[in-house]
Amino acid sequence: MSATLHKHLGNAQIASYYRDGYLLLPPEFLPAGSLDKVVAACPDILAERGPRTVLERDGVTVRSVYGPHQTSTAVEGFSKLPQLLDAAAKLLNDEVYIHQSKVNQKAAFSGDQWEWHQDYVYWIQNDGINSPNLVNVAVFLDEVTEFNGPLTFIPGSHREGVLAGTDTQGMPVGYEDAPSWVATLTATEKFQIDRSVIARLAGAGNLVSAKGPAGSVLLFHPNILHASLPNLSPFNRRVLILVYNAIGNPPTNTVNPRPGFLAARDTTAVRPDAG
Amino acid sequence: MSATLHKHLGNAQIASYYRDGYLLLPPEFLPAGSLDKVVAACPDILAERGPRTVLERDGVTVRSVYGPHQTSTAVEGFSKLPQLLDAAAKLLNDEVYIHQSKVNQKAAFSGDQWEWHQDYVYWIQNDGINSPNLVNVAVFLDEVTEFNGPLTFIPGSHREGVLAGTDTQGMPVGYEDAPSWVATLTATEKFQIDRSVIARLAGAGNLVSAKGPAGSVLLFHPNILHASLPNLSPFNRRVLILVYNAIGNPPTNTVNPRPGFLAARDTTAVRPDAG
Repeated sequence: MSATLHKHLGNAQIASYYRDGYLLLPPEFLPAGSLDKVVAACPDILAERGPRTVLERDGVTVRSVYGPHQTSTAVEGFSKLPQLLDAAAKLLNDEVYIHQSKVNQKAAFSGDQWEWHQDYVYWIQNDGINSPNLVNVAVFLDEVTEFNGPLTFIPGSHREGVLAGTDTQGMPVGYEDAPSWVATLTATEKFQIDRSVIARLAGAGNLVSAKGPAGSVLLFHPNILHASLPNLSPFNRRVLILVYNAIGNPPTNTVNPRPGFLAARDTTAVRPDAG
Repeated sequence: MSATLHKHLGNAQIASYYRDGYLLLPPEFLPAGSLDKVVAACPDILAERGPRTVLERDGVTVRSVYGPHQTSTAVEGFSKLPQLLDAAAKLLNDEVYIHQSKVNQKAAFSGDQWEWHQDYVYWIQNDGINSPNLVNVAVFLDEVTEFNGPLTFIPGSHREGVLAGTDTQGMPVGYEDAPSWVATLTATEKFQIDRSVIARLAGAGNLVSAKGPAGSVLLFHPNILHASLPNLSPFNRRVLILVYNAIGNPPTNTVNPRPGFLAARDTTAVRPDAG
C-alpha cells in the first residue's frame, strides 16, 4: 500500500455522510505536506482583483476568490490528489470533475456572516445541473474555531431537498453596480430560506459547527442547510472549497451560462495525480 | 444554614475572577425558582418602547431595554437576592448598589454582533465613576450556546486597565436622529479598541465564550475586553445584566448626567431580600 493511497473513506464514514450531510476528516486524511504549496500560494490567490474576486460589504476586505484551481498550479495539483478524487467518487458513485472552486477568506475582525442557505439551488437554477450529486470539499487552510466563523450545519437537512424560500430577485444592497451573476456570490443570499423552515429543522438544538486544525477536510452535501458567523477574532479563517461533480451530471444551461470560473464547462473526469 | 443563603463565592472562585476577569456559575448558584418571575416578566420588559429601548440596526428588532430593575418588580426583587449581593460585595470589598441594568435580547436570527469593547470607559467618561470597582452580573434567561451569540472574553485583559482606542465621536450609522446618550448604547461601539491591541491580548488563542443553561450566572469585570457574535440560530438569547457598583465609588458627573435608567443616582446600599 503506497504512502499516498492509504487513506480512503470507510463504509461507516460514507454512511455518516449520507445520514448527516457532512463529514469532517482530520488533517491525517491528507498526505503529509500535500497542502503546503496551497497555503504558500494563498496570499497570491487572495491578492487577485477582478471578476473572480468578491469583496465583503465593507468594499475593502476580500471575501472570496473563485476558480483558484484554474489559476494556481498549487491548487490544481492539490485538487487531483487521489484521496480527494477517491472520496468524491465514492460519495457520488461516479467519476468526477471540478464544477467550481474558491478560497473563502473570512478575514480576522472583518470576515462577515454567511446567511442560512443551500448550495444546490444556485447550481440547478443558474447552471442547469439537474441532480444534487455533487460534493463540497472544504479544506481548512487555518485553524477553525468557534470564534472565526466555522461552517455551521443542520445535520440531516440535506435529505429535505430544495427547501421553501424566497428568490429576492434584484441585487443585494451594496452590489448594485456588479454584473448579474454577482448576485449569486454575495453576502446576502439571493435565495432566502424561510425562517420557519430553519427553526423546524434545527429542532431543539440540532446545530453543529465544523471546527478543527488547519488541514482538516470537511465534506458536505450541496443540499445541507448551512451558515456561518462573522469572524470576531484576530485570526484569519481561510478555507479552500473544491466542488466535485459527477461526470454524469453536467450543467445543461447553454443559453446564458455563467463564467467558467463559476461553472466549469469541461466535464471530463479528473485523473488522479499524487503530486 | 438557610436554604437561600448557602451559596457563596469561595476563595478559589474569587481568585479565579481576579485572575481571569470573569467567573461563570451554574444555575445551582441561584435559589431554586428565584429566576421564574424574571423570565415570566421578560416579554413585558421587552415590549416597552421608549428611551429605555435600543433597537438593532434593522430598526425593528429589540436589542436592549435598560433599567428593568426600576420598572419590573420581578427584576427588582431578583436584584436583591442575598447570593448576588454577597457575591458583588465580596468582589468589590464594599456594600453595593445597582448602577445600571438591562435585558439584552439578541433575538433569534436577528440579534447582532457586539464589537470588542470594555464597559468601564463609558462609566468613567459619561458618569464620572472614578474606579473600575463595579461588577457585571449577567444572568442567562435562555440557554447560551456557540450559535446564539455568547459573550466572548479575552481572559486577563481586565488587568490592562483602559485600553488604547479611538473615540469615534458623533453618532454611529443608523442612529443619526437619536439623543446624544444613545451613542453609548448602540451596536457600533463609540470607543473602538485598536485591533493591534486585541490581537496582542488574544495571543495565540486566548479567547473564551461563556456558554451554559438558562439560570447560569456570569460575573465579569468592567475592564475585561469582550464582544459577542450575532445570533445565527432560531433560539433567542436573552440575558439580564445587573451592574453592581461599590457605594464608595459613586458617579461624580453632576454637570450633564445621563438619564437615571443608564446611571443611577441613588447610591444607597441595597439591602438583601430573599424574596
